[in-house]
Amino acid sequence: MKIILLSGGSGKRLWPLSNDVRSKQFLRLLPMADGGTESMIQRVVRQIRESGIADSITIATGESQLDPIQSQLSNEVSVVTEPCRRDTFPAIALASLYLKDQGTSPDEPIVVMPCDVFTEEGYFSVIQKMAKATEANVAELILMGITPSSPSTKYGYIVPASTEPDAFGAYPVSRFTEKPDTEHAIELLTENAVWNGGVFAFRLGYLTDIVKQYSDFDSYEALRRHFESLPKISFDYEVVEKAKSVAMIPFSGEWKDLGTWDALSEQLPKEYTGYVVNSPDVRHTHVVNELDIPIVCVGVDNLIISASPDGILIADKESSDTVKEHVSVINSRPMFEERRWGFYKVLGHTEYPDGHRSLTKLLHLNPGCAISYQLHARRDEVWTIVDGEALLVIDDKIIKVGRGDVADIKAGQRHAIKALTHLEIIEVQSGSELVEEDITRLPWDWDE
Amino acid sequence: MKIILLSGGSGKRLWPLSNDVRSKQFLRLLPMADGGTESMIQRVVRQIRESGIADSITIATGESQLDPIQSQLSNEVSVVTEPCRRDTFPAIALASLYLKDQGTSPDEPIVVMPCDVFTEEGYFSVIQKMAKATEANVAELILMGITPSSPSTKYGYIVPASTEPDAFGAYPVSRFTEKPDTEHAIELLTENAVWNGGVFAFRLGYLTDIVKQYSDFDSYEALRRHFESLPKISFDYEVVEKAKSVAMIPFSGEWKDLGTWDALSEQLPKEYTGYVVNSPDVRHTHVVNELDIPIVCVGVDNLIISASPDGILIADKESSDTVKEHVSVINSRPMFEERRWGFYKVLGHTEYPDGHRSLTKLLHLNPGCAISYQLHARRDEVWTIVDGEALLVIDDKIIKVGRGDVADIKAGQRHAIKALTHLEIIEVQSGSELVEEDITRLPWDWDE
Repeated sequence: MKIILLSGGSGKRLWPLSNDVRSKQFLRLLPMADGGTESMIQRVVRQIRESGIADSITIATGESQLDPIQSQLSNEVSVVTEPCRRDTFPAIALASLYLKDQGTSPDEPIVVMPCDVFTEEGYFSVIQKMAKATEANVAELILMGITPSSPSTKYGYIVPASTEPDAFGAYPVSRFTEKPDTEHAIELLTENAVWNGGVFAFRLGYLTDIVKQYSDFDSYEALRRHFESLPKISFDYEVVEKAKSVAMIPFSGEWKDLGTWDALSEQLPKEYTGYVVNSPDVRHTHVVNELDIPIVCVGVDNLIISASPDGILIADKESSDTVKEHVSVINSRPMFEERRWGFYKVLGHTEYPDGHRSLTKLLHLNPGCAISYQLHARRDEVWTIVDGEALLVIDDKIIKVGRGDVADIKAGQRHAIKALTHLEIIEVQSGSELVEEDITRLPWDWDE
Repeated sequence: MKIILLSGGSGKRLWPLSNDVRSKQFLRLLPMADGGTESMIQRVVRQIRESGIADSITIATGESQLDPIQSQLSNEVSVVTEPCRRDTFPAIALASLYLKDQGTSPDEPIVVMPCDVFTEEGYFSVIQKMAKATEANVAELILMGITPSSPSTKYGYIVPASTEPDAFGAYPVSRFTEKPDTEHAIELLTENAVWNGGVFAFRLGYLTDIVKQYSDFDSYEALRRHFESLPKISFDYEVVEKAKSVAMIPFSGEWKDLGTWDALSEQLPKEYTGYVVNSPDVRHTHVVNELDIPIVCVGVDNLIISASPDGILIADKESSDTVKEHVSVINSRPMFEERRWGFYKVLGHTEYPDGHRSLTKLLHLNPGCAISYQLHARRDEVWTIVDGEALLVIDDKIIKVGRGDVADIKAGQRHAIKALTHLEIIEVQSGSELVEEDITRLPWDWDE
């Protein structure tokens, strides 16, 4: 069995930790047994690995998430990036063709699941049951049903056609409903309906056959080049609702969406993360501080406080699910990004009255990682090496650099750097336009 | 009449805006008629100037406050700096000898007052009356009494010897008491006692005669060199309690100590200063944000929130007078300082496992201002000019620099810079020890 993990989403419900480029599944906040922390996506991948149910994990995602995935999961997973965002059906189609091209049999069970679910071991046992039911041809599609804890209006529902499961623990499905109103949700519970958990199992050939209806391109590379030939439609509409037979296997263990500050704070390993000082009378307050400067709380109660290079949030816990709407007015560039080579953090930026700008960043490269050979049309960069050793290339000349060395890189000059150890650079950008997009990437062979 | 303003204090009751080098009197937060803001010391100096009562203002202060005073008041005042802190009597003695050396007559009335009082016009009319009573020899010393609004235990009290003032509005003083307990304070009010406002008037010769009892050095420069010859004692103990005759003139107008966040917030021109976003249901909350990143408040009530490069405070208003005790555990270098040439702000700093450090600063120089010729023993500095034009000196060579220019200054290299326009520099320090004290100042004549 092979797993396709869907890693989408971006947004500001967990601002200032999440933003347009840093989705919630990448926040390294969840407690691990060894006292460390991990992100939601790291947790799910670890749980899959520990359950031993899958031969491989393929993550289907957008280009913008490639860097954080490589940084957090390195070579534990394969990654399939959509050239543009076109909803879940095209994403799953592309990942399926990738698996086919890797030599996966058309009969192989594939399980698609979200990467940002906070759940327990039993969830992965149900996934294994779903794969077995797929192998046994119980139905074209097997879905996971989440046993409802309340008549929630936040989820779609699956209504079973029987009250007794078959030998594989599966129930035939009678119908699906969209997110209901409360009255309708209460009615659905009397019909033993369950929440749709967004987990789907099918044979690989089943999906590749559907793709053929839309596209002449049946290799991964070809479909990726002609990605727009696929309709912009969700897997639920395109596949689930059209399937001839659908079954559901229920899961009733811990299953949470840590998508709001209030929900996330319940899972934090401690009430205070980072440099935090509290008066003894602080109550029911969670603080996550990613800045280097201290947060001091005196006499406060029932707050969520979070600070990152993007900004500072102070919210009453009960109101914290409205954060997204209030931060929508903030339209600044990302101030922290995880990259395949490490991460950067913006330390300061200024726009001068004549439109000239400056931006100061800390760049942290992991040993052996490199920033690709590149040039910028509209900015100079000054790099001061403050820690570590590296190979620096400027206009095709390569030199070894270390602490105290300075590179004065003018607009138009080609440059690259490869870290030989952990490497920290202070980068001062200066120019008329300072955006990540002002970049021309060039080839460079470090092994030459 | 001449005024001596005492500018002392440092501390963390208004942290993170105030710190060991940035006393509360320098916070530019108070509203001005033109819509701008001014600091407490700027407000007091402006009020003295507008009242027209004084020929000159001399500020007695410590070395560390010279830079912010010059930056905020430029040439409106004279400044006398104590070579070390030795309490109020030595400070006033030094300022008095300075006035004597400037040619002030021994008969000239001198009024000593604090620089951080938040008060109104009438206060300065009382000061004028005090000077007139001094001229008329009503007593050796005239004090200002503040009409009490409550039996406060925060102030010393002055008990008058009569219930009727003389022709100058002065009451003879019967005795002084230290800060009383509440019971004693209630008793004092029945005796028509007033708070001691820390404002003293005397003839210049009266004080210089007292200084002679301690020191053979009767010029300003000589006394400054032998400052330790004066006893470490307050003006109250050394002068007020020993005076043969003391009178008091009362003041009953607005008079406040803006020394806590709760008191200060009542005087702020608006509830939100800086980059602040609030949900509509935020109530009774004051936010002062000196950072470039946004503070977002959602659903909070009755808070003081303040952020500066030193840190972030979130305090319940009622608890905000305890801020000082909770921040006492924070022992970091100042992250913002006003300097005679402008200001600096720390953007980031790191200590590496081997003890090496890096520190990145934004330096802002005002036009015509210069950073003195200097060298550092234990750090390199890389300067990137991000705005403006300047004259740069390195090892006695002077060149003109502007945007995009980079100076790579190694430990031991002599360097200075003079701003020809507003100038911004990103400075990256790197070395084994990064403290303001690692500096050797050298002479350099810009007019050569």
